[in-house]
Amino acid sequence: MTTPEPTPAERPLLDAIESPADLAQLSSDRLPELCDEVRGFLLENVQRTGGHLGSNLGVVELTVALHRVFDFRRDRIVFDVSHQAYVHKLLTGRREKFGGLRQTGGLCGFTNPEESEYDLFHTGHAGTSISLGLGLALAASYEKEPPHVVSVIGDASLGAGVAFEALNHAGAIGQKLLVVLNDNQWSISRSVGAMARYLSRIRSARLVQRAQQEIQSLINAIPVIGPRVDRTLDQIGEVIRHSLVPGHVFEELGVTYVGPIDGHDVRRLESEIERIAELDGVVLLHVLTQKGKGHPDALEHPERVHGVKGSPPDEVVGTRGAGREDGKLPPNAAEVKQGPAFTKAFASSLVKLAERDLRIHAITAAMPSGTGLDAFAERFPARFHDTGITEQHALAMAAGMAKGGLRPVAAIYSTFLQRGYDQVFQEIVLQGLPVLLCLDRAGLVGQDGPTHNGVFDIAYLRTFPGIVLCAPRDASDMERMLDMALRQDGPVAVRFPRDTAPDPEVIHVHERRAMAPGKAEVLCEGERVVVWAYGPLVGQALAAAEKLRADGIEVGVVDARFAKPLDEELLARHAQDYRWIVTLEEHQRSGGFGSAVLESISRLPQTNARVRVLGIPDRFVTHMSSRGEQLGFLGLDAAGVEQTVRGLYQSTRV
Amino acid sequence: MTTPEPTPAERPLLDAIESPADLAQLSSDRLPELCDEVRGFLLENVQRTGGHLGSNLGVVELTVALHRVFDFRRDRIVFDVSHQAYVHKLLTGRREKFGGLRQTGGLCGFTNPEESEYDLFHTGHAGTSISLGLGLALAASYEKEPPHVVSVIGDASLGAGVAFEALNHAGAIGQKLLVVLNDNQWSISRSVGAMARYLSRIRSARLVQRAQQEIQSLINAIPVIGPRVDRTLDQIGEVIRHSLVPGHVFEELGVTYVGPIDGHDVRRLESEIERIAELDGVVLLHVLTQKGKGHPDALEHPERVHGVKGSPPDEVVGTRGAGREDGKLPPNAAEVKQGPAFTKAFASSLVKLAERDLRIHAITAAMPSGTGLDAFAERFPARFHDTGITEQHALAMAAGMAKGGLRPVAAIYSTFLQRGYDQVFQEIVLQGLPVLLCLDRAGLVGQDGPTHNGVFDIAYLRTFPGIVLCAPRDASDMERMLDMALRQDGPVAVRFPRDTAPDPEVIHVHERRAMAPGKAEVLCEGERVVVWAYGPLVGQALAAAEKLRADGIEVGVVDARFAKPLDEELLARHAQDYRWIVTLEEHQRSGGFGSAVLESISRLPQTNARVRVLGIPDRFVTHMSSRGEQLGFLGLDAAGVEQTVRGLYQSTRV
Repeated sequence: MTTPEPTPAERPLLDAIESPADLAQLSSDRLPELCDEVRGFLLENVQRTGGHLGSNLGVVELTVALHRVFDFRRDRIVFDVSHQAYVHKLLTGRREKFGGLRQTGGLCGFTNPEESEYDLFHTGHAGTSISLGLGLALAASYEKEPPHVVSVIGDASLGAGVAFEALNHAGAIGQKLLVVLNDNQWSISRSVGAMARYLSRIRSARLVQRAQQEIQSLINAIPVIGPRVDRTLDQIGEVIRHSLVPGHVFEELGVTYVGPIDGHDVRRLESEIERIAELDGVVLLHVLTQKGKGHPDALEHPERVHGVKGSPPDEVVGTRGAGREDGKLPPNAAEVKQGPAFTKAFASSLVKLAERDLRIHAITAAMPSGTGLDAFAERFPARFHDTGITEQHALAMAAGMAKGGLRPVAAIYSTFLQRGYDQVFQEIVLQGLPVLLCLDRAGLVGQDGPTHNGVFDIAYLRTFPGIVLCAPRDASDMERMLDMALRQDGPVAVRFPRDTAPDPEVIHVHERRAMAPGKAEVLCEGERVVVWAYGPLVGQALAAAEKLRADGIEVGVVDARFAKPLDEELLARHAQDYRWIVTLEEHQRSGGFGSAVLESISRLPQTNARVRVLGIPDRFVTHMSSRGEQLGFLGLDAAGVEQTVRGLYQSTRV
Repeated sequence: MTTPEPTPAERPLLDAIESPADLAQLSSDRLPELCDEVRGFLLENVQRTGGHLGSNLGVVELTVALHRVFDFRRDRIVFDVSHQAYVHKLLTGRREKFGGLRQTGGLCGFTNPEESEYDLFHTGHAGTSISLGLGLALAASYEKEPPHVVSVIGDASLGAGVAFEALNHAGAIGQKLLVVLNDNQWSISRSVGAMARYLSRIRSARLVQRAQQEIQSLINAIPVIGPRVDRTLDQIGEVIRHSLVPGHVFEELGVTYVGPIDGHDVRRLESEIERIAELDGVVLLHVLTQKGKGHPDALEHPERVHGVKGSPPDEVVGTRGAGREDGKLPPNAAEVKQGPAFTKAFASSLVKLAERDLRIHAITAAMPSGTGLDAFAERFPARFHDTGITEQHALAMAAGMAKGGLRPVAAIYSTFLQRGYDQVFQEIVLQGLPVLLCLDRAGLVGQDGPTHNGVFDIAYLRTFPGIVLCAPRDASDMERMLDMALRQDGPVAVRFPRDTAPDPEVIHVHERRAMAPGKAEVLCEGERVVVWAYGPLVGQALAAAEKLRADGIEVGVVDARFAKPLDEELLARHAQDYRWIVTLEEHQRSGGFGSAVLESISRLPQTNARVRVLGIPDRFVTHMSSRGEQLGFLGLDAAGVEQTVRGLYQSTRV
């Protein structure tokens, strides 16, 4: 996707800022003007390139104020999830690069140390900024003049268990650390969890705040009624003072709470942050911001700010770096005709299956639209559960539901399932419970990059005894596969990418074999070389086979369907009949589907075939404009497969 | 280990209880007597067999009361971690089996559905009981007369992020669920985290509680001073009422808080639980218990209750199923002479290294003694960090510390590292930060069983690009390996089992090769068959080689040292020189070290050797009396290796 350079607009203040040092030169009363320019810049640029527009529009003043008060060449700032760091990037010398935001070779959509010394971590999963900040602060405490450490976290991320763990620890040890709670008034109304409700109560408690003074004088005016009352008066005063501070839950956890304050009053923000920067211990500054602030559609059509044209829609909670729902491959990236998106196929298949099986419940961890489950939620509101950004809890809860006789389906992105890895182990697999895990975004994700690539799940799941792992090769197989999965009496994980599915017409070469664990489907036999492909790359293998056939090379193609259990019977036969078995998967080569094939063949008494594993080599794959481009880059598209197979085929002539 | 049957004691009430139905027959005033008998039973039996004595002595009355009020044939109970379920087992028909507690074929140390219909889940990792309970409750809510669901969780487990996630969600949706907080007054004094401190404040707030009534009348007696006060009076009343309930932090999260109440007054417990069983929504019952209650040494020498003779010491927080510190193999289980324990070697090596490198900090997630870090803590208190049961936070904090220039060493059991899997990915490995992960209890753990076996770490870690994975073969290699690891500029994970290390004198066959990533050490060359062993099983391979040598079979033995990066140069040479490469590891065969060898060899242009992978087959390994017994059972001891190698050697004669 080529992006035309933005037409230069008049932004005299912003254009003069090459680094935070320039920002420091500005007089305080020019700041609102600067913020307007920043907002204008974001609207102009991010709408063009795509990206997290809404959340960044919300933190303009906050980011400016933080860079005014602190010097992040030596002070430290950690953005939670870091999708809201565009303004930070803008103020730290990367303005010129916004034309290539989230494109191949261009700016990363998250903070990234490879881009700037101002970016400390490359993150994209929620909730860890307080831990990271605490670690930095502990390290800094050994310095003579310790730098300030600031963690910026959104209200939805605060519901993640790891954030609570960090606050709980930080509050106990009293290490100096500033946590800025970016409480997004738009997202909060939809975000789940009692903590969110608590924050919302804080906001609405302004009346009580205003009354504070009056109450104090009231207490002072209480006549001493008798000795019994006298005795407890001090205690009462303490209790009341405590409870009238908004945020006393935080105070109880040893955290000094400040706020809530208006996150769009840049001058007040600056002076408030200046003041609390000198406080000791853990300070939580509660800042109220408005997602999409300044967007022309923000007030009348808030939903439009999430999905402006040409831009990936922000997730509902706005913190998870979701991408294009349609996710179309650019036409030149693959030679496989594309059908409907996997996510859509998943969502509609599940709704269909749930019509006839009342035990089916759907669970998401804050990704109702990203996983397509919003359709399910609309149809079966009582059987839909959004737990917030809490994969651990979501998975353990699913285990409880399964034990209680339901058939829970947890739809979680492959990369976020990592957060609940131990619950998959202990609560689900060790118990052998029939929880269906649906791993969307399994594989490469294009613009979001390595924090969001789902390329480890086969390795980390297949080592568990008793789990069934499978992947549909196209949308047409999705429903059959889900149906099969829901009939199993134990855990099953289905993986599929964020992309359109290969067109069933292309792949539907014959009547499909019924779905059964451990049964692969042979799409065509060949000679000398057979490709065992897993998931939608079956389409690439078929396209490669077609090309090769034109040159007189007949290559076998198998839709493996299951990474666990493997079709070991078929594999044993192919190990006799072929000289090369090429495995193809959208996953790291270490420990993935190809590894499973190698393991299985190593157990055969005899084999004629060697195995060549095609997958992602042992490195992190950076963001590119599309998944298709990434597949091509790694030789996992039809052309790459064709080349590998041709080489192996020819080597066997000798 | 054979355990003599306990001498029968006079316990007329307990002896008559074959199931909770018998308990229901008892009149309420006999309950204290029954509890005394239960306590006597535990003291007599668990001291003999080993097990979590202290924590079970603490929950005698609580468990009795729960079984009195509820009928867990249809109501549901979930024990967090479930090491404190001995009394529950005792009351549900398993009294006769206590002689074999935690022994091969005997009672499991945790709840286990295979043992009884009263055990719903087989758990051992902390913090998930509220999620499981919520899942059960949601499933139950579709029944006509929904059963009661009770989750019993300890105060230390409540600090785990997943527990917060669950409370946060449960509080928001208001599902009926009883959470019993077993607040152990002994462990709390040592447990970390602001939440623990908060609980402790609740306990000390009795004065305020007693004053509650007086305050209410005080408020009622306030004269109406004027219209401004009048206006806010209702709000004040609300606020005060709220803040005077101890546990208002829970109340703010939508949870009805009840307590704290005395956990050793069984009759009060019964009536209180009876009362709140009818409340709607999430109710948290705060019960104060005393760990080791009734143990003769409890008051004067509390530490003795943790480590009674013949019994594994309870962990400090008492919730993690730790085992014998010395962990000696029974003499017949292995033919390898044993030296000092790995844990001890780790701890003393780290202290030594930390003497000369001030950047080294040690981190534990509530396992100071289990990991041996208590020695470090004593020597370097300011460089020691116990985060509580919060692996996620501990690992992300370590990443922050590394970014800040320190060299954090996170010592976490292999099985508990699973809880922080996503932080290993995102915060540590993706950033390439020099955090050293030390995985104790990597491998089989004997008496604790599958919840505590550390047999997945190679698979789930080696799929990450850029991490170094290694394992010392004995105590003598530990310091060299840690030293090497701490010189790396990126993440390293060292794994070692809960056991003694093979005697260095046995294995120290020659001057050892210097430690360097990707360099294995050849201990002896042989013909046709070479064993590549990873970690302490090198000792088993050497012992097998010695036996085979006596029969004229020369087998090569390699200490692989690194599972990542592999010594691919040596491996390529061996793939030419040998007919069989046997890999040996204490880990699942799926995705482990052997898989890495298979992958590497599959990339060679040519190979003469085939690979045989020895490891744990694709199932969960149940608890046995010792690790040595488990190794023998799986053919991973010297005898098993000998047999495999002999077979392969002979097959190559043909």
